[in-house]
Amino acid sequence: MFPDADYSGRLDRARALMSERGADVMLLSVGSDLPYFIGYEAMPLERLTMLVVPAGGDAVLVVPRLEAPRVVPRDDAFSVLPWDETEDPVASVAAHSGGAEVVLMGEQTWARFLLALQREMPRTRFESASPVTRELRMRKDPDEIALLRAAGAATDRVVATLDGIAFAGRTEREIAADVQRLTVAEGHDVASFAIVASGPNAASPHHEPTHRVIEEGDTVVVDFGGRWHGYCSDTTRTFAVGEPSADVAAAYAVLAAAQAAGRAAVRPGATGGEVDRATRAVIEDAGYGQYFVHRTGHGIGLEVHEHPYIVTGNAEPLEPGMTFSIEPGIYLAGRFGMRIEDIVACTDDGIDELNRSPRTLHSVA
Amino acid sequence: MFPDADYSGRLDRARALMSERGADVMLLSVGSDLPYFIGYEAMPLERLTMLVVPAGGDAVLVVPRLEAPRVVPRDDAFSVLPWDETEDPVASVAAHSGGAEVVLMGEQTWARFLLALQREMPRTRFESASPVTRELRMRKDPDEIALLRAAGAATDRVVATLDGIAFAGRTEREIAADVQRLTVAEGHDVASFAIVASGPNAASPHHEPTHRVIEEGDTVVVDFGGRWHGYCSDTTRTFAVGEPSADVAAAYAVLAAAQAAGRAAVRPGATGGEVDRATRAVIEDAGYGQYFVHRTGHGIGLEVHEHPYIVTGNAEPLEPGMTFSIEPGIYLAGRFGMRIEDIVACTDDGIDELNRSPRTLHSVA
Repeated sequence: MFPDADYSGRLDRARALMSERGADVMLLSVGSDLPYFIGYEAMPLERLTMLVVPAGGDAVLVVPRLEAPRVVPRDDAFSVLPWDETEDPVASVAAHSGGAEVVLMGEQTWARFLLALQREMPRTRFESASPVTRELRMRKDPDEIALLRAAGAATDRVVATLDGIAFAGRTEREIAADVQRLTVAEGHDVASFAIVASGPNAASPHHEPTHRVIEEGDTVVVDFGGRWHGYCSDTTRTFAVGEPSADVAAAYAVLAAAQAAGRAAVRPGATGGEVDRATRAVIEDAGYGQYFVHRTGHGIGLEVHEHPYIVTGNAEPLEPGMTFSIEPGIYLAGRFGMRIEDIVACTDDGIDELNRSPRTLHSVA
Repeated sequence: MFPDADYSGRLDRARALMSERGADVMLLSVGSDLPYFIGYEAMPLERLTMLVVPAGGDAVLVVPRLEAPRVVPRDDAFSVLPWDETEDPVASVAAHSGGAEVVLMGEQTWARFLLALQREMPRTRFESASPVTRELRMRKDPDEIALLRAAGAATDRVVATLDGIAFAGRTEREIAADVQRLTVAEGHDVASFAIVASGPNAASPHHEPTHRVIEEGDTVVVDFGGRWHGYCSDTTRTFAVGEPSADVAAAYAVLAAAQAAGRAAVRPGATGGEVDRATRAVIEDAGYGQYFVHRTGHGIGLEVHEHPYIVTGNAEPLEPGMTFSIEPGIYLAGRFGMRIEDIVACTDDGIDELNRSPRTLHSVA
């Protein structure tokens, strides 16, 4: 599923960052760290899978024996240590961490395993691995951007197909099923999610599709994505079923201007906070500030939400190779909602847009 | 998605177990604990959702404001405290945990949040919530068993449909897509997984379906399940494409006898270890012991793998209302694999079988 990559180089860069921070060992488990560093995704089940990365030694993957055949070996990067049903993998990880003073833990590791490791290694200080993992993962190399671009182009094709279908008379769940089917048909490995939020439901940004029947006059937020060789897509377009009301049209004009302002603010050296401000200022100036209830965007890569976050207070400057969403929304409780979301990459001198379908209010039957 | 249930009663029983253990607060986040206690599933994303359950007070759900509209309120059980994008939800959870000496943490909570809470509450001892959550969740009430039964019956119908399709000439991924489509068509909310492992690939118990084309003479392990109002199904049948070889037929006879022995061993008071032994003894006695590389089974409910585990060394007695799989397998590396998996419930005097499709080697074209 994951592309072949320079895993040993990535691990070496992690070791350098670990040494800078005085960390002896990094422990990574479920989530997107393992795919990034070794091209393997741990099953999110009760049997522990954990990559032990010593700052000064070879990486070892502790993995349940019955899942070991799923691992694609990369002898240059790591060795595989299967454990049997009656063995204790936590003890094995602790033994391979050999008296570490400071251990960095992958962020999504289950509390169950962190607590067990803390019991097993009482003199060790445990910290988040994020300062290492985020630093590497949020700066994409050209191969990673190519995958994100291919995924984005596939979602643009899905949007083009949606423009031609009838929404009225069908339920949110039916449209969501169409979107997921098209996401796979356009080449994604899997469809990860499809928010279809119609009429007043669209005022809930993370609405789960229901059996509500879409009606003439509704606006419908469609926010969806999948995985493309492990890399995520995530785009949102808002559809108007028939003629939009004057209120909807007025709000949408503000939203589109805000989203364009956000894209225009992307360049190396601009901070996530500044891009958020550029977007938010347009919405606030038009009097809709209280209806834009979330940040402007999130990084994207192997994980659908990752660093950098485009949010008030983020003072970290953008750099070439960072990829993230620009997705302002306007939500009026009980009435309607709208959002426009594109994935973009920061380049040497500005922005590379990975979604290009029209950012207009999409008119459908 | 989740059935309505006596959430306040479940929380009260949790409080009683917390008090027995001297715990002041229980903190639950992603995974199946929240659905069990409040009927809400947290999005597994970077924004913290956490239920604070004081042993002597009211439960509070700390939830991102943009996800708060997804929560179905149950005023008798918990209140909702949304947090805004620029607020710190960890500080809010710590404040609501008010100087607790002992905090129990939901097992799948992200290490990131546990580490942050440990920093915020340096004098607090953090332990796993499992002694509370597993005790309640592994004893199903009649409504829960009814949902598991309905889910199991739906998977039996999928197996019956698979009996009539042609496997030869199609890829594992194509069959897996059929299985997932049928899983939903038979009434599941979602198809969670579909292992389709053919020929030598079937020797890997957790094989991921590939583009391998299934051939005459293959055995094919199909292990799949979905969610039915949140409750999981999980069943495995092994298919023979054309006439099985004498080796396959011989091994399968042993496997079927072992699986039947496991079911026959289920009764209140028998331990998980004893049921595992009953299954394993048949396979060992026939000389296949080294090829049965995993435990006999796992509990099932809101999570596909949960307590009780049917594994060597588990000395906890089964009780009426416990639900779990019986799934021995035989795996010969490079040659073939086979598994039979049923979900069963322990009753007052024996076993209630929630899967009933034929446990024979299923012959297909």
